[in-house]
Amino acid sequence: MAETRFDVAGIGNAIVDVLARRTDDFLAENELVKGTMSLIDADAADAVYGALGDSVEISGGSAANSMAGVASLGGDAAFIGKVRDDDLGDAFARDIRDIGVHYETEAAKSGAGTARCLIVVTPDAQRTMQTYLGASQDLDPGDIDPEIVKGAAITYLEGYLFDPPLAKEAFVKASEIAHGAGRRVALTLSDQFCVDRHREDFRKLVEGHVDILFANESEIMSLYEVSSFDDALQAVHGKCDIAALTRSEKGSVLLHGAGEVHVIDAAPVDKVVDTTGAGDLYAAGVLFGLTNGYDLARAGRIGSVAAAEVIGHMGARPLTLLRDLIGSI
Amino acid sequence: MAETRFDVAGIGNAIVDVLARRTDDFLAENELVKGTMSLIDADAADAVYGALGDSVEISGGSAANSMAGVASLGGDAAFIGKVRDDDLGDAFARDIRDIGVHYETEAAKSGAGTARCLIVVTPDAQRTMQTYLGASQDLDPGDIDPEIVKGAAITYLEGYLFDPPLAKEAFVKASEIAHGAGRRVALTLSDQFCVDRHREDFRKLVEGHVDILFANESEIMSLYEVSSFDDALQAVHGKCDIAALTRSEKGSVLLHGAGEVHVIDAAPVDKVVDTTGAGDLYAAGVLFGLTNGYDLARAGRIGSVAAAEVIGHMGARPLTLLRDLIGSI
Repeated sequence: MAETRFDVAGIGNAIVDVLARRTDDFLAENELVKGTMSLIDADAADAVYGALGDSVEISGGSAANSMAGVASLGGDAAFIGKVRDDDLGDAFARDIRDIGVHYETEAAKSGAGTARCLIVVTPDAQRTMQTYLGASQDLDPGDIDPEIVKGAAITYLEGYLFDPPLAKEAFVKASEIAHGAGRRVALTLSDQFCVDRHREDFRKLVEGHVDILFANESEIMSLYEVSSFDDALQAVHGKCDIAALTRSEKGSVLLHGAGEVHVIDAAPVDKVVDTTGAGDLYAAGVLFGLTNGYDLARAGRIGSVAAAEVIGHMGARPLTLLRDLIGSI
Repeated sequence: MAETRFDVAGIGNAIVDVLARRTDDFLAENELVKGTMSLIDADAADAVYGALGDSVEISGGSAANSMAGVASLGGDAAFIGKVRDDDLGDAFARDIRDIGVHYETEAAKSGAGTARCLIVVTPDAQRTMQTYLGASQDLDPGDIDPEIVKGAAITYLEGYLFDPPLAKEAFVKASEIAHGAGRRVALTLSDQFCVDRHREDFRKLVEGHVDILFANESEIMSLYEVSSFDDALQAVHGKCDIAALTRSEKGSVLLHGAGEVHVIDAAPVDKVVDTTGAGDLYAAGVLFGLTNGYDLARAGRIGSVAAAEVIGHMGARPLTLLRDLIGSI
């Protein structure tokens, strides 16, 4: 096998997060349902953005956040995702490169603008998201650079990109290139509603193409249509080589092969400020661990520490260099 | 194999619990360390009992509580444990028979008085225990009725009885009778300090005689001298047929054979009043489940429900008929 150029190559939505702290009243006034992520069109994006007012803009997107985490942990990460050649697109590219992630997907010269996610954080640290996917949905198989995928130990796919048909094709192409080069493929289920929309396709992808599956409790329960976490755990057993299942403050459970199961605690957090990015950074920690020779339990503990860092402040990308936090774990 | 007469026969300390709600100041005044269980002699028992004043007396003892739980769930339970022929001994026997547990161990006619456990419950629902073991420690191999052990699908041993050498002999005798009759043997580690005192003996017993092991997080970590729950989980893997490991509000993890692992949530509790007996009732639920044809995950869920009932009120025995709570789980 050729030498790896990257530990992980993430493929996902290229989104700029627009974050604002607001009260529950703001949610009610704008008819937003707390804790959900809903997709909006360009007009609605403009309307909510106008109502939001004062806010902070940070490059985001689930797999992109994870790649930022891998880089912060000291790993080599690449990202593939589509922006438009507009101001937000420039900002996205600048931010992700600044943190050390390789990013060279060509910006679209026409069509929808760069994607943005309007995130309202209420005082209970819950996030309510309104996402305009714009250009990020226009990723197509031509954007998958075979040299990046072949050069990455793990190619990491973001479930949110399952909605646009061409992006789904891009996933299959990337999986085939990765496996053809003897590499591994990871998938995050991203969102329980996303799982509801694509349950059969996700099941096929998991059994046919995925070596490492990431899901939170509600996503894995949705995938297998069961009503308890333990039932989901039994259902996923044997479906892929590794499954890493997150449970918020209950920590995570990692399965490997026929009989290896690890129950990993959440890392302590002084104050939960904003849970945006917790799952993304957990995945970053596990992916970093798996590509840097750590055993599965330690990979899980690194995931817990990375997730704890990101929920201790606003925004879905680490503010501390994560490599400094994982020395003794 | 002969027909079973009992689902479970428990062997443990026959103790009367003396419960009182007091503030943290009471603990400080009497030099008691919150959350611990310490052993005291007859004189100290009289002194603390005097300081305690107003209190409630309820028959207790760890394995005896579990047998009360099995009976409350609708199972057939027997108990073997030693009292003195005094008032507390009469009360113990009357209480345990009232709830439907078969109990016929002969009371000692001389020697130490019936055991009592002085339990101070602070406003945070923590319990601090001072135990005078008295007559309960004088259990000897002659008290093990072979007909009861042979007639029980599972013989359940309480780790606390590992301190007196004759009681330990009684355990080995009971295990050999049980296995000779094709029955199963279960053990609860009871207490992390108890594990510290008898680590090597417990490890030998677990590997040589025990089919079903119960332990909480600190006990199993002490048994294998590791610093995380997951490390303990890996260490116990393969050491006995079934391990049921409790984690307070984090629920429990049950292992079976080479690769079956269940992660079971704690059952919801409106208000935690007194955690005394949580582990005992969890064990009752699992033992009832295993001897009544339920799968391991459901046995664990029954354990969670039984534990949730007992921590919702003062005292270590159920106040509700547990069989009425488990219909749909």
